[in-house]
Amino acid sequence: MANIFEVPKPGNDLLEKADQVRLASIKIGQTENQKRIKALNFMADYLEKNTNEILEANSEDYKRAEKKGISKALLSRLKLTKEKLNSGIDGVRKVGELSDPVNQVQIKRELYKGLILERKTVPVGVIGVIFESRPDAVMQISSLAVRSGNGVMLKGGSEANLTNTAIVNALQQGLYESGIDKNAICLLTSRKDSMSMLNLENYINLIIPRGSNELVKFIQENTRIPVLGHADGICHLFIDNEANLEMALSVALDSKIQYPAACNSIETLLVHKDIASVFLEKAIPLFNANDVKLIGDKRSVELGLTHEASLEDWQTEYLDLILSIKIVDDLDEAISHIQKFSSKHTDGIITENSSTANKFMNIVDSAGVFHNCSTRFADGFRYGFGAEVGISTQTLPPRGPVGLEGLVTYKYFLKGDGNIVDYFSSGKAIYTHKDL
Amino acid sequence: MANIFEVPKPGNDLLEKADQVRLASIKIGQTENQKRIKALNFMADYLEKNTNEILEANSEDYKRAEKKGISKALLSRLKLTKEKLNSGIDGVRKVGELSDPVNQVQIKRELYKGLILERKTVPVGVIGVIFESRPDAVMQISSLAVRSGNGVMLKGGSEANLTNTAIVNALQQGLYESGIDKNAICLLTSRKDSMSMLNLENYINLIIPRGSNELVKFIQENTRIPVLGHADGICHLFIDNEANLEMALSVALDSKIQYPAACNSIETLLVHKDIASVFLEKAIPLFNANDVKLIGDKRSVELGLTHEASLEDWQTEYLDLILSIKIVDDLDEAISHIQKFSSKHTDGIITENSSTANKFMNIVDSAGVFHNCSTRFADGFRYGFGAEVGISTQTLPPRGPVGLEGLVTYKYFLKGDGNIVDYFSSGKAIYTHKDL
Repeated sequence: MANIFEVPKPGNDLLEKADQVRLASIKIGQTENQKRIKALNFMADYLEKNTNEILEANSEDYKRAEKKGISKALLSRLKLTKEKLNSGIDGVRKVGELSDPVNQVQIKRELYKGLILERKTVPVGVIGVIFESRPDAVMQISSLAVRSGNGVMLKGGSEANLTNTAIVNALQQGLYESGIDKNAICLLTSRKDSMSMLNLENYINLIIPRGSNELVKFIQENTRIPVLGHADGICHLFIDNEANLEMALSVALDSKIQYPAACNSIETLLVHKDIASVFLEKAIPLFNANDVKLIGDKRSVELGLTHEASLEDWQTEYLDLILSIKIVDDLDEAISHIQKFSSKHTDGIITENSSTANKFMNIVDSAGVFHNCSTRFADGFRYGFGAEVGISTQTLPPRGPVGLEGLVTYKYFLKGDGNIVDYFSSGKAIYTHKDL
Repeated sequence: MANIFEVPKPGNDLLEKADQVRLASIKIGQTENQKRIKALNFMADYLEKNTNEILEANSEDYKRAEKKGISKALLSRLKLTKEKLNSGIDGVRKVGELSDPVNQVQIKRELYKGLILERKTVPVGVIGVIFESRPDAVMQISSLAVRSGNGVMLKGGSEANLTNTAIVNALQQGLYESGIDKNAICLLTSRKDSMSMLNLENYINLIIPRGSNELVKFIQENTRIPVLGHADGICHLFIDNEANLEMALSVALDSKIQYPAACNSIETLLVHKDIASVFLEKAIPLFNANDVKLIGDKRSVELGLTHEASLEDWQTEYLDLILSIKIVDDLDEAISHIQKFSSKHTDGIITENSSTANKFMNIVDSAGVFHNCSTRFADGFRYGFGAEVGISTQTLPPRGPVGLEGLVTYKYFLKGDGNIVDYFSSGKAIYTHKDL
């Protein structure tokens, strides 16, 4: 938190921009569902029309980045092929097909004859997005913001500035064409602005970071604006002694190798001591065959692992083909280990004993608690949300994978015909509290 | 945020206590609804049995506080009469009658045959409560915590230590009698502990402050634990030129005087210029007759007000029989003023024109937007929640008056029969996403 003082104060330019977005967000927040859908279609149309411009901007960005000697991984994320762009455009149209998250009535209650309370969903306001590379993120997050009636301030990596600018131009043309204030989507292109954004608590209602754990952690520690996201994803799978062995092997493998760079991949496998020898006998060659490096505690080294784990291993999100293994005496030890090291993202158990599974799922305090399935299912699309805005590992809602629901809040609307509280306090009337 | 370093690190004693509460909270979080209801009844029984003890402790506290020369307002809040205690005991039993907030299924969805996702409410974990005087708060908040399966760490004002200790003893006896770990309710009695609590982010999941604006602000600025509550309550009422005059007078008066110390009372009245002269002609004598001091802008002084307002007035929560009045040109100016000065608690409009009302309610970004009724209705009990845990003025949920719902969160439970993601990614299976 000491870092807060390093975040620069927003300059007048930025404040002016932020004010424009805020004003535009109030307007887009009032628009009908159909108008927002129309805007998304126009946005997709203009991305199509401007395809050449966008791809040219991207090859220029790419050339400059190459010259600068940027890492291959970053270069490949920066590269926008025609296919990637088309799939992004498809994505924008698909967001239009999601059901409207705004104006959903959550409570409608008569407090007294003629005094009606409604709790309805409303847009959050202005969303700040800070992301690294991946110009496709601009299309995705902007369309989600428009779908939910929000304004958005975007700050991408400087290596993608030309691409991001070309994309945002197209998106703004689409907004304009549909009669929505184009300032509802705003791109910041200087690094200074990016950090100053963290001090715009009077303009930005929610920050969504898209990038490395370090970026997310920095943002969480340097802003008073709520942040939707998570830094670490240290997920565990516990193989109980009553596990089906084949299932345990298959789910453990999928949870690790299906996409090791994802936050919902496991980093640590906990194995019940009574099944450890049989399990490892099959697991070691299986993981070896899939290029997974295994690192284990003393007991698992005794059973054949070649690398011994240090305390740091239990705390590390490898995001790679590396897996730490610990042999535990029982369910309680597995739960204790998870309580100590889990980042509260997703933790699973493999067992045929449903009371063991229930105990595990009830006690483990993570956003997702899984029984007999891969941790890789922890994902907004797989959950059927149609979109994923982020995954939250905080205890309070929103928690776990968050869909469009994460971009709206609610407001209480109370309509009366002159009602006053004194009338009730003095006993002249009694609340009816009738749900309508 | 600079103050964070002044909050003392928790000592070993406090960490040990916090760990006991955390362990007890895991246990109470697993209990059945009926068991928690039983516990509440036992808690009420023991408060009854220990009535003499509690009242004696309170008169001792009172005597000591009197000697110390504590303010009359504080003394009257500290005083626990038999009636106050009985009404607190009634309150504990009534909390048992509220419907169970835990284990509520919010989503139940088949992702694929045999792969079932459930989103269910679960207790938040451990709630930290910091309150000033008012020993009745101990009974209320402890019973809400038990109802929702949470552990609670309480820190009251030191002037009520004996009373609070006697009450917590009774509550713990009740827990014990019903077979629940008595550590689920824990009272801290030293001021040092109170502030160190703010650094217990690994033990406490939510902090609820009950006290002055200054206390709340200090807590919000000095902890990374989520805080449920609000500091200021600067509420506005706008009298439109198309208002029903009688209604405007009656609602304005109720919004100010029905209980001026409440956060949902208005501090500022905004009056449309076209109705200002007629309105003030009746309002000035009416408010005068009710001992309300009126402070106004230039134009309202020209219309008869005797005190002129400064910038500070628009920023002040008087919590007293004082009201600031500003004459505005139109709806837009009223909305601008509210956007600038409202604490986003509750703001209302009086008008017979429903499109004006809708515009006001849609644009004003406060937890409560009211039309033709008193702002004093912004309250959990009046909304029919059966309880009020706090009122939140943040944009993201929970927002506005928060009932028991504010003490639970949710978790995703996914149960399969060995499902792996590769099966879907490789096209061998397609998600069904069927709500059950």
